[in-house]
Amino acid sequence: MYFFLDVFGIAVFAISGALSAGHKKLDVFGVLVVALVACLGGGTLRDLILDAHPVIWIANTSYLFIGILAALATFVLVRMHWIPKHTLEVCDAIGLAFFTLAGTQKALALGHSTEICLLMGLMTGVAGGVLRDIICNEIPLIFHKEIYATAAIAGGLIFLSLHHFQVNEQLAAILGMATTLVFRLAGIFFGISLPAFLFSEDERSNE
Amino acid sequence: MYFFLDVFGIAVFAISGALSAGHKKLDVFGVLVVALVACLGGGTLRDLILDAHPVIWIANTSYLFIGILAALATFVLVRMHWIPKHTLEVCDAIGLAFFTLAGTQKALALGHSTEICLLMGLMTGVAGGVLRDIICNEIPLIFHKEIYATAAIAGGLIFLSLHHFQVNEQLAAILGMATTLVFRLAGIFFGISLPAFLFSEDERSNE
Amino acid sequence: MYFFLDVFGIAVFAISGALSAGHKKLDVFGVLVVALVACLGGGTLRDLILDAHPVIWIANTSYLFIGILAALATFVLVRMHWIPKHTLEVCDAIGLAFFTLAGTQKALALGHSTEICLLMGLMTGVAGGVLRDIICNEIPLIFHKEIYATAAIAGGLIFLSLHHFQVNEQLAAILGMATTLVFRLAGIFFGISLPAFLFSEDERSNE
Repeated sequence: MYFFLDVFGIAVFAISGALSAGHKKLDVFGVLVVALVACLGGGTLRDLILDAHPVIWIANTSYLFIGILAALATFVLVRMHWIPKHTLEVCDAIGLAFFTLAGTQKALALGHSTEICLLMGLMTGVAGGVLRDIICNEIPLIFHKEIYATAAIAGGLIFLSLHHFQVNEQLAAILGMATTLVFRLAGIFFGISLPAFLFSEDERSNE
Repeated sequence: MYFFLDVFGIAVFAISGALSAGHKKLDVFGVLVVALVACLGGGTLRDLILDAHPVIWIANTSYLFIGILAALATFVLVRMHWIPKHTLEVCDAIGLAFFTLAGTQKALALGHSTEICLLMGLMTGVAGGVLRDIICNEIPLIFHKEIYATAAIAGGLIFLSLHHFQVNEQLAAILGMATTLVFRLAGIFFGISLPAFLFSEDERSNE
Repeated sequence: MYFFLDVFGIAVFAISGALSAGHKKLDVFGVLVVALVACLGGGTLRDLILDAHPVIWIANTSYLFIGILAALATFVLVRMHWIPKHTLEVCDAIGLAFFTLAGTQKALALGHSTEICLLMGLMTGVAGGVLRDIICNEIPLIFHKEIYATAAIAGGLIFLSLHHFQVNEQLAAILGMATTLVFRLAGIFFGISLPAFLFSEDERSNE
């Protein structure tokens, strides 16, 4: 199941990267790069910061091929109008849930403290999307979108709490992922967002 | 005093990050991330490049909490109109002076050459602000602002020169920080900038 | 010849960085930083990801000085109208050919697999330009430009194939660089581009 979720997460994030790049008139190569950054950027940044060499896609190059294949598949899917918005968002939520858990577990296995594990889970889940948006010259979507990072943090907290109380590892992992998924789906389907944090003159004039 | 300056520098840079993010309609989470990147990004990049693991905020997680607290405090300070422009700029100058010194000293302790120490001091002082502006989709402020990096370089040069001539370490540190501070404050209060380096048609047509 | 190509590549990429920055009203310091990022960013990212410490410009600080000198020289060259467009593009193509080869060889010397060597060559050749454009708040040029990354990939593939069949190392290196150069020059002089990958409404309405 882990292997399946891993492949699934990478494929979904690569597709999200290819779609973002496709809206920016990038050429085929640019689309591939943005797709790879979106699906592997979070794990790469985590591995660099934790000094966990070799980084994930050097240790296992099949990640690269999955990302490239998913990006190429996006060409076909888009032409066929096969990517309905909510389907993609639900897949992305599953990817987020799994990546967050995988990042948390990796930091835990390296013996890091609870707060670092939580942060590394969050980084693995969201940094790819942040880097994707920076390359595409946009303010990162996850910073002003329905509950996204909050879902990752909630899932990481549940997993780490259960792990702390020595709940069975697999059960803790499933409950952690379920938490992220529920929060994120609630954000998507009920349109719940965190309050924005405005300092602009517009806001002041409204006060 | 070192500990106080460290906390002070992180808090001030986190506030600057929170204020930048606040102008961009980011949500609460986005503001926290940008604040953390602004206050810890320079040190993180330095530690990655110098291979000085664990990176600063993994070695001491209280940095993370200080950054988060400062970002949250910004909410309150802004509502209360408690952040006058010049006060913040002066605090930022103190943060720059200290971060530059801390980065230079760390590279020196790791046995690097003078030019690398200078560059690492500069990177520690300014890279957080550069990353903050990249995430907020702006051309980095420090690249077209009153003497900012120049102040960091000047302070680093004074510290490294005094260190070379075996002046007392603490005295050298204080003089280095004072140099950065004086240059930066001169930039703020007299509006001194480096000349811009334009190649655009506008400039040519003015020639 | 290696040393000459190395210096040449760094100088040309630094000039390209200085020219980009110069169009953005950056000050002198900003121009220097963007020039250094353009000429050393690709190698730095490669070394961080491969855990090949010390990074290239710490191991040999003359790279820093070459980059800074080339950026300063750009001031003079521009004032004198000494930078004709095609000359710069041809020089940049030579830089790309050499950087790609150098990155591929470094990954090969560290014992990495063929696909990682190819990717590291590509990263060394193009990441500096990508980072330059991100700092200058542009969508990276190489993602929507005449054959650029494709040229790097082609050169890397030729070199790695010849190396695999145990062709003399120097001959393989020269043929690899020549391949990159020919592809890139074809892109420049015949204006060949990869097809763009558009998903926008505009495109759909044209279908």
